Amino acid sequence: MHAAPNPADARSTTRLRVRFVDTDLMGITHHGAYFTYLEAARVDWLRRRGATYADWANQGLHLAVIEVHAAYNHPARFDELLDIETTLTELRSASLRFDYRILRAGKVIHVAWVKLACIDDEGRVRRMSDAVRAVMLAKEHVQPSEPI
Amino acid sequence: MHAAPNPADARSTTRLRVRFVDTDLMGITHHGAYFTYLEAARVDWLRRRGATYADWANQGLHLAVIEVHAAYNHPARFDELLDIETTLTELRSASLRFDYRILRAGKVIHVAWVKLACIDDEGRVRRMSDAVRAVMLAKEHVQPSEPI
Amino acid sequence: MHAAPNPADARSTTRLRVRFVDTDLMGITHHGAYFTYLEAARVDWLRRRGATYADWANQGLHLAVIEVHAAYNHPARFDELLDIETTLTELRSASLRFDYRILRAGKVIHVAWVKLACIDDEGRVRRMSDAVRAVMLAKEHVQPSEPI
Amino acid sequence: MHAAPNPADARSTTRLRVRFVDTDLMGITHHGAYFTYLEAARVDWLRRRGATYADWANQGLHLAVIEVHAAYNHPARFDELLDIETTLTELRSASLRFDYRILRAGKVIHVAWVKLACIDDEGRVRRMSDAVRAVMLAKEHVQPSEPI
Repeated sequence: MHAAPNPADARSTTRLRVRFVDTDLMGITHHGAYFTYLEAARVDWLRRRGATYADWANQGLHLAVIEVHAAYNHPARFDELLDIETTLTELRSASLRFDYRILRAGKVIHVAWVKLACIDDEGRVRRMSDAVRAVMLAKEHVQPSEPI
Repeated sequence: MHAAPNPADARSTTRLRVRFVDTDLMGITHHGAYFTYLEAARVDWLRRRGATYADWANQGLHLAVIEVHAAYNHPARFDELLDIETTLTELRSASLRFDYRILRAGKVIHVAWVKLACIDDEGRVRRMSDAVRAVMLAKEHVQPSEPI
Repeated sequence: MHAAPNPADARSTTRLRVRFVDTDLMGITHHGAYFTYLEAARVDWLRRRGATYADWANQGLHLAVIEVHAAYNHPARFDELLDIETTLTELRSASLRFDYRILRAGKVIHVAWVKLACIDDEGRVRRMSDAVRAVMLAKEHVQPSEPI
Repeated sequence: MHAAPNPADARSTTRLRVRFVDTDLMGITHHGAYFTYLEAARVDWLRRRGATYADWANQGLHLAVIEVHAAYNHPARFDELLDIETTLTELRSASLRFDYRILRAGKVIHVAWVKLACIDDEGRVRRMSDAVRAVMLAKEHVQPSEPI
């Protein structure tokens, strides 16, 4: 089963700040650090739809990264505020894809996509339950009041 | 010159969330991740006193970690909100010390201290300027409106 | 100028071990950790051709990541030995591309490619010098005797 | 029960290289990265005594960090080779302590100690088995032939 998420519903934006530890000796954000931003934004995306990924993980549902692509257009630097725009673009029975744009002061500096598979505690692929699918197709309805 | 910061002025609290990448296969927050929380809290502590550590770094002033101690009383877990209580407890001419308590839901789970030296771009120790000292002795007067 | 590296010359293999810190609460290697393996393998690839990337960095030549793609076929786990097979597949005047396969016990578990741009200390793109190009087109001729 | 390990038997040295990702915008190794070196050296220390920490972890025996102290005397830099000298200095019924010196070209640049508790999969402290104690009190007798 392959659902096409409604683009207007499927998007959320998460603001993050670049930490000192994320920088490298070039003075810029290390390319690997962006994947931690995308991951934090995914967790926030779910929270804005009423789901807590930590609860899912405790119940044995994991979203494991299976494929990524990222283009680094402009470097981010220490202490900058980044807006991570996260959009669910594909929802299959046991996998999904998020597309990302990272903006700094309104300018796109990074574009990426990440595919994830639903797996259980033993790493076996499993279909999403209806409850999980409902979260994925929901629109943002929770405004985070705490740090993401 | 050795100033004793006023304890009431010298304390700020920063709320952070444990990220997925911070966990390890024991299912808890990796011990090394706490140092990134303490670091982010230091940057926030300065911002609450009107200083931007990134500006200092760009001007060639760095605060390099020279000694740390940490006791892990209870493990933190993915997605938990942590309050990092940061207190400047020593201010010397070219070095300083912060004491930390990390609380989860009001309970102390981690205690640490970090000593830092003021260095320039070449790594030479240098005295703090009066402007920098003034920031260190200021009380918190900026409420952060953005992610830390 | 666009050189097609000789495939036989352009490949090196680097063996690494998964560290505890690289794991996450799923019990597997975090997807972001692979980029640090690919990076370490690039540094090793250069060393095997007589170049020390650290020297280049000190001289103001950096290879900045501008695009990546990675497919995670099978998870790696703590303490496993991984063979990172690194092949230079594109060499342009100011950029290059490495293709990677990560093998565990002879089985491919991860496939990736990384594009890098040559930049200077200010982040400006610059052409590779002839000396740098010569390294890129050299075959492996140094056997590492130290950890990579 | 509190055993005093024989100092001559209790020491091993592990050589590591500083990776690019370990650096920060000061151009030096980030203070947090050292804890990953100490951890990798502990795993190597055990392997040199015939034990595989990964096997222990799979069997539900974990060594969780409960306290650390570290003094940073001289910064390490990208690509440098570091010798991590690891000594078991305390062995109690359910905890142990390692003392560390990190040397670069024979010069001590970092001194640290780390206390660990033996815990099970649920995080409960548990006594070391005789088999585990025997490993801890053994002298180094395996020469690693693979990357650590």
